[in-house]
Amino acid sequence: MTTPDVEPILLHARDARGVHTLTLNTPKAFNALSEAMLEALSAKLDEIAADEGARVLVIAAAGKAFCAGHNLKEMRANPRLEYYQQLFARCSRMMLQIQRLPVPVIARVQGLATAAGCQLVAQCDLAVAAQEARFGVNGIDVGLFCATPSVPLVRNVPVKVAMEMLLTGEFISAEEAHRRGLVNRVVPLDALDAEVERLVVAILAKPREAIAMGKAVFYQHRETGIEAAYQLAGQVMACNMMHEVAQEGVQAFIEKRAPAWRTG
Amino acid sequence: MTTPDVEPILLHARDARGVHTLTLNTPKAFNALSEAMLEALSAKLDEIAADEGARVLVIAAAGKAFCAGHNLKEMRANPRLEYYQQLFARCSRMMLQIQRLPVPVIARVQGLATAAGCQLVAQCDLAVAAQEARFGVNGIDVGLFCATPSVPLVRNVPVKVAMEMLLTGEFISAEEAHRRGLVNRVVPLDALDAEVERLVVAILAKPREAIAMGKAVFYQHRETGIEAAYQLAGQVMACNMMHEVAQEGVQAFIEKRAPAWRTG
Amino acid sequence: MTTPDVEPILLHARDARGVHTLTLNTPKAFNALSEAMLEALSAKLDEIAADEGARVLVIAAAGKAFCAGHNLKEMRANPRLEYYQQLFARCSRMMLQIQRLPVPVIARVQGLATAAGCQLVAQCDLAVAAQEARFGVNGIDVGLFCATPSVPLVRNVPVKVAMEMLLTGEFISAEEAHRRGLVNRVVPLDALDAEVERLVVAILAKPREAIAMGKAVFYQHRETGIEAAYQLAGQVMACNMMHEVAQEGVQAFIEKRAPAWRTG
Repeated sequence: MTTPDVEPILLHARDARGVHTLTLNTPKAFNALSEAMLEALSAKLDEIAADEGARVLVIAAAGKAFCAGHNLKEMRANPRLEYYQQLFARCSRMMLQIQRLPVPVIARVQGLATAAGCQLVAQCDLAVAAQEARFGVNGIDVGLFCATPSVPLVRNVPVKVAMEMLLTGEFISAEEAHRRGLVNRVVPLDALDAEVERLVVAILAKPREAIAMGKAVFYQHRETGIEAAYQLAGQVMACNMMHEVAQEGVQAFIEKRAPAWRTG
Repeated sequence: MTTPDVEPILLHARDARGVHTLTLNTPKAFNALSEAMLEALSAKLDEIAADEGARVLVIAAAGKAFCAGHNLKEMRANPRLEYYQQLFARCSRMMLQIQRLPVPVIARVQGLATAAGCQLVAQCDLAVAAQEARFGVNGIDVGLFCATPSVPLVRNVPVKVAMEMLLTGEFISAEEAHRRGLVNRVVPLDALDAEVERLVVAILAKPREAIAMGKAVFYQHRETGIEAAYQLAGQVMACNMMHEVAQEGVQAFIEKRAPAWRTG
Repeated sequence: MTTPDVEPILLHARDARGVHTLTLNTPKAFNALSEAMLEALSAKLDEIAADEGARVLVIAAAGKAFCAGHNLKEMRANPRLEYYQQLFARCSRMMLQIQRLPVPVIARVQGLATAAGCQLVAQCDLAVAAQEARFGVNGIDVGLFCATPSVPLVRNVPVKVAMEMLLTGEFISAEEAHRRGLVNRVVPLDALDAEVERLVVAILAKPREAIAMGKAVFYQHRETGIEAAYQLAGQVMACNMMHEVAQEGVQAFIEKRAPAWRTG
């Protein structure tokens, strides 16, 4: 048997530092979230979740577009309620895997992020965009309101900004996305990798265990009332403080030296 | 019997496209939300909800002020707890009718929006303001904290911005309202109608059914945790995708033509 | 017995107008929230809550830093889970006392606000910052994710802004804090007191009773769905309207005079 001479739809790299990069690699299809792409992403997210040496995940894309959302041809070819239910359930599960991953996930947005592609950016913990990038949830242009993309979108940007994007299908610029809270940084395209690397290096300099605990409770307490939020967060901080990374980190601070765990 | 020669307090127009316009029409009273005005608005919102050809609602106002909130003379003349309870319940019901309306509601804010008038802007799905417009929740100036206006206000703008407006009674400019998320667009007064029309035209080009489904689930999932939100939104998207408007929209997209339902 | 000749760690002033000022006064320790400081703050907050003539509380700090968060030496010296649990519970209780206080609480931020110091700013109802102030939740630098500070932080600023601060430990400027909603005003250091006083004077001109009712329901309804929020807020407004301060305030408005309760 020979391996077929085709590129995989999802590239995966991991460097010695534990930095994973997943690159959506169907540029001719604008990196659409086809069934195969969703499955590949979910499988890789499971794999990265199981890598105890993982430190950060960058989600990137090949070609001019970041991600054009669902694969409309595939959807049109399967006009069955159960198919659509399973498709959106699969997509939502993948999005929640990002939130549940113990390491930070950074979207590297070099171009257009549309519908579920915009959702992917919103769902990541952090996002860096090139000035050329634009963001839209324009399913409504084909008669399909971007309901699932609106889930993380309205948890990122003001409600009327989200509603305008959803109702009109109009795109916002990278600068506007930054002003509204959808992305953390906007840089020229040729500075995009350096800017992502800056965030990666900052994260690598912190201990994985503390980040994992903190990220989990952050998304958990955000959904509760403030009293329950404080109880949850207080328990986690107490556990975090008991951990050797914090004991060493605080000791190092007192002794005015770098903590022994610092690798960055 | 002759009809009294007075203008109605609430003007209602509907064009052939299904664009409804409600115009608050007591400019000498700064378009206050008197009992009569609240009743008229509620009745009209019920009527528009029942119009299956409705596509969008614009809420506008006559004169220099958009809306000055509740009618203070009327309130002072009825110093009974039951009266106030019923008044605020009636006002809240009207506000929730806006959220529940199957078509988008756009506030056309040509001037001052005060207290429940500011609430009305916050409660609409979209808002376009003239540069002259200003926004305040200044009930506290007469000893009445704008508690019900604060409900949609804090769901539109950052918490400390809302709190400052509520505690100090100070107004913010249209530009500040735009920066903070309370309105979508700010334009010169003489460009206000054109800007509202731009949004109307964008909405008319999308199918009513998809917007109705999407608007409903948007406000619903916003109040739940993210897992439940994805489940709700996924179900709606699957149903939306089964609908003929999406099947035709996606088919048209694949064939690189306009969908047959497109009217805009 | 003689009183030891040391300054108290927390200064407390109350003027004839009912304006309380608490000043964190361990500048050499960057006004860290040590156990003693948390206890002193809690005791004073109880005392101010019981002062029926209190109108507003300003939380200020001596020296160059506003507040550096928890006292790390103290924490390192007590490496026991129960100790940390009690410490964070005590800190959270103090933060919630601020939210529950019947009068508005203004943070006067003259310098660096770090970790639980940044949390303190986020938890206050209003905040005024000097241009020199900077804001960070950088516990992660010593291996301790700022979980409890993230509770009010993510309730003040967009989620990705909060996450970036938490993961990288990087600081934001006073201007950025203003743009993102963490503080209400930014002024030169020598204008800081005048700007705080402007807010104080605005609040003094409103009746205490209406503010107390409004502040309480504001934080309560913010955590519920919008229907429950309107019910809660409507009940409070009806009660507020029955109160003599609103009856007099509205009457004065109708008669175009200042309300008799106005003191500002």
